[in-house]
Amino acid sequence: MTTDLEIARATTLRPITEIATRAGIPDEALLPYGRLKAKIDPALIPDTGRRGALVLVTGISPTAAGEGKTTTTVGLTDALAAAGMRAMAALREPSLGPCFGVKGGATGGGRAQVGPMEDINLHFTGDFHAITSANNLLAAMLDNHIHWGNALGLDTRKIAWRRALDMNDRSLRQIVGSLGGAANGVTREDGFDITVASEVMAVFCLATDLADLQERLGRMVVGQTREGKLITARDLKADGAMAVLLRDALMPNLVQTLEGTPALIHGGPFANIAHGCNSVIATKLALRLADVVVTEAGFGADLGAEKFLDIKCRQAELSPAACVVVATVRALKMHGGVAKSALAAEDVAAVRRGIANLARHVENCRGFGLPVVVALNRFSGDTEEEIAAVKEAMAALHTEAILCTHWGDGAAGAADLARAVRRMIEHGAEPYLPLYPDAMPLAEKIRTIARRIYRAADISLPPSVAKRLEAFTAGGFGHLPVCIAKTQYSFSADPTALGAPQDHILPVREVRLSAGAGFIVVVCGDVMTMPGLPRSPAAERIMLDDQGRIDGLF
Amino acid sequence: MTTDLEIARATTLRPITEIATRAGIPDEALLPYGRLKAKIDPALIPDTGRRGALVLVTGISPTAAGEGKTTTTVGLTDALAAAGMRAMAALREPSLGPCFGVKGGATGGGRAQVGPMEDINLHFTGDFHAITSANNLLAAMLDNHIHWGNALGLDTRKIAWRRALDMNDRSLRQIVGSLGGAANGVTREDGFDITVASEVMAVFCLATDLADLQERLGRMVVGQTREGKLITARDLKADGAMAVLLRDALMPNLVQTLEGTPALIHGGPFANIAHGCNSVIATKLALRLADVVVTEAGFGADLGAEKFLDIKCRQAELSPAACVVVATVRALKMHGGVAKSALAAEDVAAVRRGIANLARHVENCRGFGLPVVVALNRFSGDTEEEIAAVKEAMAALHTEAILCTHWGDGAAGAADLARAVRRMIEHGAEPYLPLYPDAMPLAEKIRTIARRIYRAADISLPPSVAKRLEAFTAGGFGHLPVCIAKTQYSFSADPTALGAPQDHILPVREVRLSAGAGFIVVVCGDVMTMPGLPRSPAAERIMLDDQGRIDGLF
Repeated sequence: MTTDLEIARATTLRPITEIATRAGIPDEALLPYGRLKAKIDPALIPDTGRRGALVLVTGISPTAAGEGKTTTTVGLTDALAAAGMRAMAALREPSLGPCFGVKGGATGGGRAQVGPMEDINLHFTGDFHAITSANNLLAAMLDNHIHWGNALGLDTRKIAWRRALDMNDRSLRQIVGSLGGAANGVTREDGFDITVASEVMAVFCLATDLADLQERLGRMVVGQTREGKLITARDLKADGAMAVLLRDALMPNLVQTLEGTPALIHGGPFANIAHGCNSVIATKLALRLADVVVTEAGFGADLGAEKFLDIKCRQAELSPAACVVVATVRALKMHGGVAKSALAAEDVAAVRRGIANLARHVENCRGFGLPVVVALNRFSGDTEEEIAAVKEAMAALHTEAILCTHWGDGAAGAADLARAVRRMIEHGAEPYLPLYPDAMPLAEKIRTIARRIYRAADISLPPSVAKRLEAFTAGGFGHLPVCIAKTQYSFSADPTALGAPQDHILPVREVRLSAGAGFIVVVCGDVMTMPGLPRSPAAERIMLDDQGRIDGLF
Repeated sequence: MTTDLEIARATTLRPITEIATRAGIPDEALLPYGRLKAKIDPALIPDTGRRGALVLVTGISPTAAGEGKTTTTVGLTDALAAAGMRAMAALREPSLGPCFGVKGGATGGGRAQVGPMEDINLHFTGDFHAITSANNLLAAMLDNHIHWGNALGLDTRKIAWRRALDMNDRSLRQIVGSLGGAANGVTREDGFDITVASEVMAVFCLATDLADLQERLGRMVVGQTREGKLITARDLKADGAMAVLLRDALMPNLVQTLEGTPALIHGGPFANIAHGCNSVIATKLALRLADVVVTEAGFGADLGAEKFLDIKCRQAELSPAACVVVATVRALKMHGGVAKSALAAEDVAAVRRGIANLARHVENCRGFGLPVVVALNRFSGDTEEEIAAVKEAMAALHTEAILCTHWGDGAAGAADLARAVRRMIEHGAEPYLPLYPDAMPLAEKIRTIARRIYRAADISLPPSVAKRLEAFTAGGFGHLPVCIAKTQYSFSADPTALGAPQDHILPVREVRLSAGAGFIVVVCGDVMTMPGLPRSPAAERIMLDDQGRIDGLF
């Protein structure tokens, strides 16, 4: 079997200058990083008045079987380009940490990949390193302020700002810092999150320009006084230097698919603690350059699409023209109760049971007023009857389920999907309907998502959490959207409840203010913001071969 | 007064492709990072047989007055180029951390600067971020190994590997990690060094190619078993992934001086815990491209030049053709006992007293068999009599002291210095004499440096330290050179003993094995491997102006 890496290596990518020229990017706006990557300065792109159509790729609740959302995003973009449209993908940058754990790369698969895959999966153009630096400069300035006398009166028991590293490192989740005496500062509990979980990452992805970035950075809350007054990054005078560290990073990165279609890959906030989509700046730039822009949101549609619409599109005033929900027969079987080890056997009944999950995601996306199509990402073991079961069930919902084989066939494998998407775009869509208005009380926003998207009977809100929501509202943050952090594996907060559970209670455990990003994080159940490495991490098998090429990163 | 920043902004840098062409670098070897920076792949540079002359710029013991070593390196390179020689500078990359503390940038000053200064001082081409990532991947794999059962039997009380960040952050000097329960690993004491103090940085700067890099990374010691068996990065299978993270970073970075002379800026190990010079790969590449390469070593000649010669040149089989010792009248006055606040007043007697420091550095450099010239970096307040005092004292030592004004005048201000250096190159020099042979016992190596360079009466070696040196020798590391970590402000271990103290005792406090870098670190007195921020850090004043340019970084 041919691996993703072998396919990537067998493909000769074109010079990025050529990709840029075909995408209508003038030379002066292009800052090459080697021959195959470039940053684009949006300020130097002439406004032709073009405003492309935005297509959201989302998916069913993820399973261990894998669904192929990124692969479908790439395949669809290639197919739209092959059909003669000016198409562009807008994707998230992968995090370095998981590459060395179990996940491997995050640049699609098969013949539907973006490249250069090694670069994109490793340091790329350094954006995440810049975000890590900005996060940690703020942390250093915070502890330095306390060390030199704490003039702002920060309550050191209630520091809200954590340090960050782009690494899977469980040892740093919970630490005590400033040990070893007075010269090392004021001892306190602290911890590191993985960089994609930093609020700086969320801010980076929601900012509309450099000025907005600095403004948002300044608003970020790092702690409070004993009297409860919030202390921000601006109070520490850290916002200017943080913006300086992020200046170059804020320019979107141009790369290409293996078929030579342009792709902007920029930003990558965690899809649990944050909103999980690529940067607003890249999406808006892509829409100015292309007639159709295909983008992706993290996790299943319950989390990803909801946050994409209620946070990113709301803040950035975007509205998608179409929504693609990705599913696989294998994953539907898992939602239907089949174990991963038993996926090879045909099981039409299990597929039928699992379709409940897909159907609910489709309904939810339609509830936002979006035209929806299902991409059934074919695996070689899928049988005709299993596929027919999905198509029939979707037809009953008046939704097309289109078989895709872009993993093996590239653009040709997503040609039918591209035709369907094109029809939806040409038909035109009304602006999407946000799930709740800004003015709705925060607790009610949570309840609305829980009932309408997760089909919960209600939420459980401990009095202490309700009180914090009231404090946020009193502090002027009541108008913000909410960003739910819960397991991605289920509509409920129980990761083992696959399929389409309903009438459950969504347990709200904790709420956190992300004043810079502009949302309230609502933690339901356990949420991990610093992953660990597995017993035998992928890093042990990543190495250079005798030609200096990178092996083991796939 | 015109600031460094204003001068840098008033200068239009040439496209890096043009600088590369003039330096004889073929297009295919050039990987541009934006328009003004590029990485060079040494493997794609044709070997013309050229082997340029290497010129070392070093200095007197540094004082608060500032000496201008980098500025002189840049001015001299420009002057050699202006005189028609094919000249190139080989410099260290600045660390991000100190930029936000007190130091500001590290790219020279006045009309003797390298650019683009904001880029070089901030993320540059991401080399330090790659080194940070490699350092912390090893740390994560180490704690992960312990977490999953510690099959190698590491003694968790004696872990030798620390984490790293390119940030001044005293809170991270000493921490306890893995708190919060079994899921977060095995609780132990830990700490962070600034990235430039990581052994990965030293390894990066001493490696001759990618294979040597991986080999050295694998040799790095991370801890030991209860039985005293050393455990290495290779035992943890981390060397491959670390080399992958460093692959692109290992290519030298090409930039230019404000006068358009090419400069390779690559690597930047701390000059206390490590050897303090730019990468061997960059120096060797520069020597293949230019007729004369001007390079710099950290701190005064007692630390910088000694390590440059006994560690870098020894390992890389290099030998400088000339040595420039930089001094200023102001700094000599401080060595002569004048306070910083009183430097403005003429004080010829103090200059004469302070010359003892300069004279000893000159003698030491000559002791290595190097032709030596003194660059007297002129400040506007220096009087004719003060300058004459320096010249006379040097003449008595048969050494030329040449007045330089490159800060204000660029290449023209270092024309005399360039002529002197050129004469020394044309005259030819024998290979330098290492201070000690490989075979000398480790304690004797330390004593030799202490007596011959620092003019100490002897060293004090606690029995526990002597025992560790014996263990290193028994372990097969007795042939390594030693890397002294002591205060840079004095020949002695007492930072307040300015001038030329002698017959002191060098107190050896601790020794550490850097098996990957290939030296034994000898800590004499306190050595700080993670700086802190001052009460009012420079970061508070670093910001973007209304044109998006960076202010406050100088």
